[in-house]
Amino acid sequence: MSKLPTSPLAVALPSLPPVPGVRLASIEAGLRYSGRLDLTLMEFAPSTTVAGVFTKNKCPGAPIDWCRSVLSNGTARGLLVNAGIANVFTGKAGFEAVQHSAEAAAKAIGCHAEEIFVASTGVIGEQLPYQKIVHIIPKLYQQLDDNQWTETAQAILTTDTFAKGYSLKTKIGTETVIIQGIAKGSGMIAPDMATMLSFVTTDAKLPASVLQALLSEKVKTTFNAITVDSDTSTSDTLLLFATGIANTPEITDASDPRLTDFANSLEKILKELALLVIKDGEGVSKLIEITVDGAVSHESAHKIAMAIGNSPLVKTAITGEDANWGRVVMAVGKAGEPANRDTLSVSIGGVWVAHEGGVLSDYDRTIVDRHMSEETVKIKVDLHLGNGTATIWSCNLTKGYIDINGSYLRS
Amino acid sequence: MSKLPTSPLAVALPSLPPVPGVRLASIEAGLRYSGRLDLTLMEFAPSTTVAGVFTKNKCPGAPIDWCRSVLSNGTARGLLVNAGIANVFTGKAGFEAVQHSAEAAAKAIGCHAEEIFVASTGVIGEQLPYQKIVHIIPKLYQQLDDNQWTETAQAILTTDTFAKGYSLKTKIGTETVIIQGIAKGSGMIAPDMATMLSFVTTDAKLPASVLQALLSEKVKTTFNAITVDSDTSTSDTLLLFATGIANTPEITDASDPRLTDFANSLEKILKELALLVIKDGEGVSKLIEITVDGAVSHESAHKIAMAIGNSPLVKTAITGEDANWGRVVMAVGKAGEPANRDTLSVSIGGVWVAHEGGVLSDYDRTIVDRHMSEETVKIKVDLHLGNGTATIWSCNLTKGYIDINGSYLRS
Repeated sequence: MSKLPTSPLAVALPSLPPVPGVRLASIEAGLRYSGRLDLTLMEFAPSTTVAGVFTKNKCPGAPIDWCRSVLSNGTARGLLVNAGIANVFTGKAGFEAVQHSAEAAAKAIGCHAEEIFVASTGVIGEQLPYQKIVHIIPKLYQQLDDNQWTETAQAILTTDTFAKGYSLKTKIGTETVIIQGIAKGSGMIAPDMATMLSFVTTDAKLPASVLQALLSEKVKTTFNAITVDSDTSTSDTLLLFATGIANTPEITDASDPRLTDFANSLEKILKELALLVIKDGEGVSKLIEITVDGAVSHESAHKIAMAIGNSPLVKTAITGEDANWGRVVMAVGKAGEPANRDTLSVSIGGVWVAHEGGVLSDYDRTIVDRHMSEETVKIKVDLHLGNGTATIWSCNLTKGYIDINGSYLRS
Repeated sequence: MSKLPTSPLAVALPSLPPVPGVRLASIEAGLRYSGRLDLTLMEFAPSTTVAGVFTKNKCPGAPIDWCRSVLSNGTARGLLVNAGIANVFTGKAGFEAVQHSAEAAAKAIGCHAEEIFVASTGVIGEQLPYQKIVHIIPKLYQQLDDNQWTETAQAILTTDTFAKGYSLKTKIGTETVIIQGIAKGSGMIAPDMATMLSFVTTDAKLPASVLQALLSEKVKTTFNAITVDSDTSTSDTLLLFATGIANTPEITDASDPRLTDFANSLEKILKELALLVIKDGEGVSKLIEITVDGAVSHESAHKIAMAIGNSPLVKTAITGEDANWGRVVMAVGKAGEPANRDTLSVSIGGVWVAHEGGVLSDYDRTIVDRHMSEETVKIKVDLHLGNGTATIWSCNLTKGYIDINGSYLRS
């Protein structure tokens, strides 16, 4: 397909310094694309621990099966990522492709195949030409370096319109550690769908169980709180690697108070990466932030917020810069969660427009209309039923989405 | 908003003859529109029974509250419908508007207000000027006639692009009866959303309990098996009235075998009306028929079919006339219902394109591509897990949907 215009919400890739214990490189393997990097290898220091979260789609790709299976060991020495072919719905041959690729990476690094994590994104139903991967891995291994993050942020993209990364420093005890990650988002390759991949690394020393507990907790309010179009990819993968190179104190419990800063920083980086994915949503021109308060539980608030964020009528209203609170009321009502029309309030851009079951006839339309023309539209709903609260992020629905998904050239 | 172009899938309104026991008329009440019929009154013979199904949205309009409340009586003498203002999110004043309107209709007909059913469609959050309704009802009553179906099929529309009705004859025992209905679909009025209203009448003599049992059963495979955009209106209403003028045998049980023909005919008319709604879906250019077989239950099959029918990626692929079975696999997987990737088969236009977890490399692309260019696209999924089966109907997602819902003039 022809190159898509860069998202109007694009963010420049920040400087991504080396992460102690991580070496990486990307190469042109010619798997499906030509003239661009499409295969990435990361090598992690011995004793690197790992945590992961994967798509809940019941028809996952072969790489997801592999990662789920090897994750229980809790250790990782390598990560192999290809763009162009998703290796989904490829049967037994698809599994073998993963296995051969992982074995080749393990041989280069000098570890067990079960210490290699694998992720693929791209076309569905096409076999991965793993021979090309196996063949090129020795060369790719030779190129490993600690300063290839920018190239790698590019190499994992499919039809994303900009590279996505984030880096920050935090402390565990008195020791400074780095947390740095890259992501790819809602690109689309015929005949495939949006896929989210994100890889986050840190030099902190943390057991896999602690890492997994932190990741599972923080993903709820970050990557699991975004939606582009309600469709769930067969390949979504979020992996967190901790190399243990930093001289951080030994911690065995995710609720250890010395982890507070680290946990907050992890949440921040996951949120920033998730927002970058939304800002590159197909056809996006506006970010939507939806907060639901007063629900019977946090989970209920999350479901209602997602119903609003996934409503095509809400999303098209925002494209039209129309403060259509009636559609928000409709979306609250269709979520299937406890809601009482007569206690429901809606605010847009910080202005309450509907209150306890009726429109506020005297709200300041000038402020609300001005807010609707901004890049980020903020919607808040208060159900006045309980203490459940949640915030999620979505993007608007435009003709660009139809263009990208309805009229690309057939492969 | 300016007049929308007629749907390319529009169907001409058939001849709608009188239904014994039903008189009706429509009038210009000037509630919101001008220069068109916008208020309808139907009068039913004494002893008319009624059944109803309403939106499951938790923020329903005042007319829904009213109908739910009076439905338990099981009898109806009148139906009052207005287009232009939905009377949703209007608080106590909204309820009083319904009450005053029903009382005025009851006074004209000579019955209790609780025997009047009320439905509204149109803008949310705006008060219904019920004084205009109360004032004009005596005049409207004078115009009642048994042959005003065509005008009434028009009067209930909002931004529908064509009038929708269907009529058929069937038998109960040896007695011929008529079943005839009208519907309005996914029109949209700023700031409102698609609303479905349908009113079906018959001269059969059936107790309300039997009528309700039949309607609740047959709605599952008809009106509850269609989706335009996954959004659920606050006003959806389906009412079935039986005037009892026909000399049909006394029947007290919905499973009475003498009702087989009638039940089948009821299902047929509900299905035809539901399909007319889809054929006027916002921006529609193709109808999608989705059948799921081999699910663990019928309910599970229905949920999976709806996940496919609501997937923006499936809907845009069909706009692009792309036989994108990979997106169908994704939608099956995201439905949250039991599914096994490795036993999953997908057919498009009657041709199996993917089988037991892999693409069929030798399927006849010529036939499939030709099918994709047709007006109705048929997708079938076989999960090979059980005997659950369901068929639903959806429409494609086009730039027209964005135009209608994202760029109309503010009211």
